[in-house]
Order: sequence, then C-alpha cells, then structure tokens
Amino acid sequence: MAHGEGGQLTHRLIQEVFAKAFGRGLETGYDAALLPGWEQIIVSTDSFVVHPWRFPGGDIGKLAVVGTVNDVAMRGGRAAYITAGFILEEGLPLSDLASVVNSMAQTARGAGVVLVAGDTKVVEKGKGDGIFINTTGFGPLLPGAALSLEAMEPGDVVIVSGTVGDHGGAMLVARSGGELLSPVESDCASLHGLAADLLAACGPAVKMLRDPTRGGLATSLVELAEDAGLDIEVEEAAVPVQEAVRGICELFGLDHLYLANEGKLVAIVREQAVDTALQVLRRHPLGKEAVSIGRVTGRGGSLYLKTPLGITKRLERLPGLQLPRIC
Amino acid sequence: MAHGEGGQLTHRLIQEVFAKAFGRGLETGYDAALLPGWEQIIVSTDSFVVHPWRFPGGDIGKLAVVGTVNDVAMRGGRAAYITAGFILEEGLPLSDLASVVNSMAQTARGAGVVLVAGDTKVVEKGKGDGIFINTTGFGPLLPGAALSLEAMEPGDVVIVSGTVGDHGGAMLVARSGGELLSPVESDCASLHGLAADLLAACGPAVKMLRDPTRGGLATSLVELAEDAGLDIEVEEAAVPVQEAVRGICELFGLDHLYLANEGKLVAIVREQAVDTALQVLRRHPLGKEAVSIGRVTGRGGSLYLKTPLGITKRLERLPGLQLPRIC
Repeated sequence: MAHGEGGQLTHRLIQEVFAKAFGRGLETGYDAALLPGWEQIIVSTDSFVVHPWRFPGGDIGKLAVVGTVNDVAMRGGRAAYITAGFILEEGLPLSDLASVVNSMAQTARGAGVVLVAGDTKVVEKGKGDGIFINTTGFGPLLPGAALSLEAMEPGDVVIVSGTVGDHGGAMLVARSGGELLSPVESDCASLHGLAADLLAACGPAVKMLRDPTRGGLATSLVELAEDAGLDIEVEEAAVPVQEAVRGICELFGLDHLYLANEGKLVAIVREQAVDTALQVLRRHPLGKEAVSIGRVTGRGGSLYLKTPLGITKRLERLPGLQLPRIC
Repeated sequence: MAHGEGGQLTHRLIQEVFAKAFGRGLETGYDAALLPGWEQIIVSTDSFVVHPWRFPGGDIGKLAVVGTVNDVAMRGGRAAYITAGFILEEGLPLSDLASVVNSMAQTARGAGVVLVAGDTKVVEKGKGDGIFINTTGFGPLLPGAALSLEAMEPGDVVIVSGTVGDHGGAMLVARSGGELLSPVESDCASLHGLAADLLAACGPAVKMLRDPTRGGLATSLVELAEDAGLDIEVEEAAVPVQEAVRGICELFGLDHLYLANEGKLVAIVREQAVDTALQVLRRHPLGKEAVSIGRVTGRGGSLYLKTPLGITKRLERLPGLQLPRIC
C-alpha cells in the first residue's frame, strides 16, 4: 500500500522500475511533461482511486479533472483537452456513475477543458472498488512560462497559495462515516487560472510550481529540494492551516504538512518578484491567503523546518503509510 | 459485467451517460479523436484489465501499448507519445510489475513511441486485481490520411488484414489453466506500420480503419454500418480464421466473428483501390493474409452475413456476455 502514497516507496518504485525500463523521455522531476522535440505541448496523466468516492467538497469525478488540470498547470501549461478511462466494478449503480460523470463534465466546463476521448472497462465484483478513473490532460505551454529546476537558486522564496491539508482533512471526515463532525471541506479546485495569472505577472521570476497532493506540502518540497540539489527552509509558523484541520490532525496523530491538498500551489519565486506574486495570487479567489513560507538557502538537497521554538529539523518523505487512497 | 464488453450495453452506456454529460467534443464514431479546432493531433485513451495478465503471445504491458498505438493508427495517426497510469493491487509481486513494465518499454521502443508521463496508485488487497493499466497515446495525423465515415459509400470494399479471433482464442487458452493444449497465440501487435503503408499507397481511397478488438469483427462492422448509415454485407466463407481458433470456438460454443483481435485491421476501401490495398497489406509481415471479405451495399445501417449456404442474416451487437476482460 505504501508504494502508492507518494512517499519514500513510491519514489523508489519510480526510480527502480519505471525510470530503468523507460529511460529516454521520462522526466521524473515534474508533475507533467513537456513533449521532447515536438510542439510546445504539456501532458500529464493521473489515476484516481480515492475512497470513498464522494467526500465533503467533491467527488472522484471532480478530482479526476482538477488533479490533471493542475498537474498540467504546474508545468506552465493550460489543459485544453482531457481523456477519461473508467474502470468500474460490477454492481456499481448506474446512478452513481451518472453522478460522477456529470460532476466531471461540470468541472471540465468550469476549467475550460474539453473531453475528447473516453474508455470504459468493467471488472467483476471484488476485483475493483466501485469506480477508478484515469485522466490524461494536455494543452499548450502558456506564454511567460519558463519553469525550470535549473533556474532555482539560493535566495528564492517559497510561496503557498493558501491553507494546507484541507483535502486530507476532508478525507478523514469522509472516512469517519459521520462520526467526525467538522466543517472541513476538500479544497479540490482547478488552479489553471491562478497559475496563469501568476505566470503572466511574473514570467521567468516564477522558477517552479508544484501542487502538493499526495504526501502534502512537506513531500512536495522534499522532492523539489532533491530535484534541484538545493536546500529549502520553511518557517513552520508561517504555513497557513485551518484550525479545524489542525484539530483533526491532533485527533489522528497526523501532521498537516504531510496531508494532501487538491487546490493549492507552491511557487518558487525570485526574491524581487515576491511582492508582485503575492498581490496577484491574493487577487484570485483561490489565492486569497497566499503567503511566503520559506526560502531556498543554499546548495544541498534537503528540506528543513524551523519550528516556533527556533529549532531547525530536517524533514523527509514519510517512510510508510499516512493516508492511503487520498486521490 | 456486460457493460464493459463492447456490446449493446457498452453502446447504451456511452450514449446515455457519457455523451449526454459531455456532448461537445466527444466524437463517438471513431477509435481515437482528432483534436477539434487545434493542431492535427490524434488522441486515444484505453484502460486495460485483461485477465490473466499474462497470456500466450503477450501480457497486459504489451497489450496496453499496442491497444493505444492501434487506436491512434485507426484514426490515421502515428502515436509518437504515450502516457501510462497504473493501478496496482496490494501484494502484487514487484517482479511481476517489473516484468509488465519491461514488456511495455520493449513494445513502445518497437512501435517508436516514447513514454512521457506516468502515474502509480495502489489499492488494498481485494479492491483491485493485480494490475490495471491506462494508456493514452497521441501523435500527428499521417500525410495521406483522410478517413471519414461520410466518405463511405455503396460499392466500397471491406478488407481484413488477416485471421480473426486470435486474441480471444489465446485468452480462452490462458483461462483454461493449461487444460486446453492449443497452438493459438494472441495476435497482439502494433499496426502503425501496416496502417501507414496502406494510407501512403491509397490515400483518400481508404475511407475508414478499425481494429476489431472487444466484440470482434462483427461488432466493429455493426458499429461502422450504424455510424455511416450504410448496409454492409460480409461473405462468411471469405473471413479468414485459423483452424485452431475455429476448434476452440466449437468447444466453447462461441463465434469467431465476435472474438477479439489485437493485431488486425479492417479497412473500408474504394473499389478501384482494392488491388493496390491488398498488395500493400500483403507485403507487410502483419498483413500477409489480407483479403476482401465484403462490401458496402446501400443505405441502411445494418450488417449482413452471407453464409456458405447462400442465406443472408442480419448480425447485431452481442446482447450480453461472451468473454469479459479480454483487454
């Protein structure tokens, strides 16, 4: 199970099985791929197995569109088209399927993305789990986008577009089966507009974008630090978190820094552009609570967290399971 | 289960749930989509849940590449890039995964297609079935390709590139657990080269291409007839079938016309170009047994089969299950 959670084991799986077999062409440092040697087209693929498939603030259909639109956006692209592959378990009520498909269609319309191809397979009862969806999104690179790990350098600032852990918190509420009364809803939202505004205003001063989904903010930043070969330091007190999410984390002994987000972005921005970046983000409904939370501090490749007590500790990928099937 | 088999219920599912929700953009008459209002790019997506995942002549990894390469080829495109999304069941041996991934990589290299993005999810034991794979392929429209349902007209000839039912036959062998000793292997192969040769030689005289996978030759031709609003008549005796596949069909009470193929194409070709088409196909290793099997006979929308006894009967989609999880 832990191989699917975005932590250490997922990382090893990608390096040892997939990268070894495919080598050429498979970039592992980005959420989406810029097609090598072809048009300026960005592509991303994602499978969704979220359980339960309906949760506060969304469902698997919304998530399947949002997740892929966001991965394309984090690479500087604008998803124009999307494909959908469904794997349904025998016995799934058609009304549930229709509800999920309608939710996908509505989310796609909202994000300005057109579904161009689909496929449906059915597996026997007990060989699936209701509904799994794969989406692949693709579209043109946005003007102004010049995202690159190589452009990152000491002094760059880490910005997050809002509170962290909302999606993970909502999934915990959903799984409590009504026992956990909490106002937390998934932040599940398409970030294409927010990313486009930021790139239009700041251009190449935006060095990298990530949406901290599986593994949360901490895992995304560990990956960024490793991929760029740079140290990143985050001020724990600066990271925005809803009180209700903090409460849920205390209840379950979890850390909001590792809880999934589905409607937040992390941007690495040149210091001189930070004020502009924050202004632009805060003007957008999805970035009202954008704030800078840390900095690239030097050569290295690690993520450090400065606690309110002034202690600095190194953060790593989670070694095992926190929350399976979060997306 | 029957909703996933490519027959009547799959057809209704697509019309009543997916087409209704998405409308705009979702072409339902083709194996792959030409992106509306954008570049000349062809896209197709497919999920693979074949059981067992290893079978005579291939495995789910090979099939996942071939299936998508072929769908793109059937729309006149050349898959240049592919994405892969894996849904793994907890407990799948890593060696099995590596074997499948290596098979994918080898097939992709053989087909000249580059994997550009991937994703892996893991579900609990009993919530999946070993390994499911979604692939999405895309690439440029080939020069000379002018495939269109509207171009089909009475007098056009139906060509099939070789024996039918080989993949379905191989799956029956695989499922017999070694009890059925038979030389049948899946025809699982990338048709991009065969399709490109045909399009280069015959250009717009090739009206439509289909790869008769789920539901076999009969279902593909029923769909073509309905989508084009034309009647098609096939000579039963002209359809090539391996003796071993015919034997398996007799044993199980199945019809080879409805058995899946994964390395055959059906072409609708203008009468004057048939000789050239057959010559070109037969020169290619995958088309050596290409033969014309029937004709577009008039306005209508139905498929008719002329039996060796001279009786003509109408063929329909299968109403229910023949072979689930064939791809």
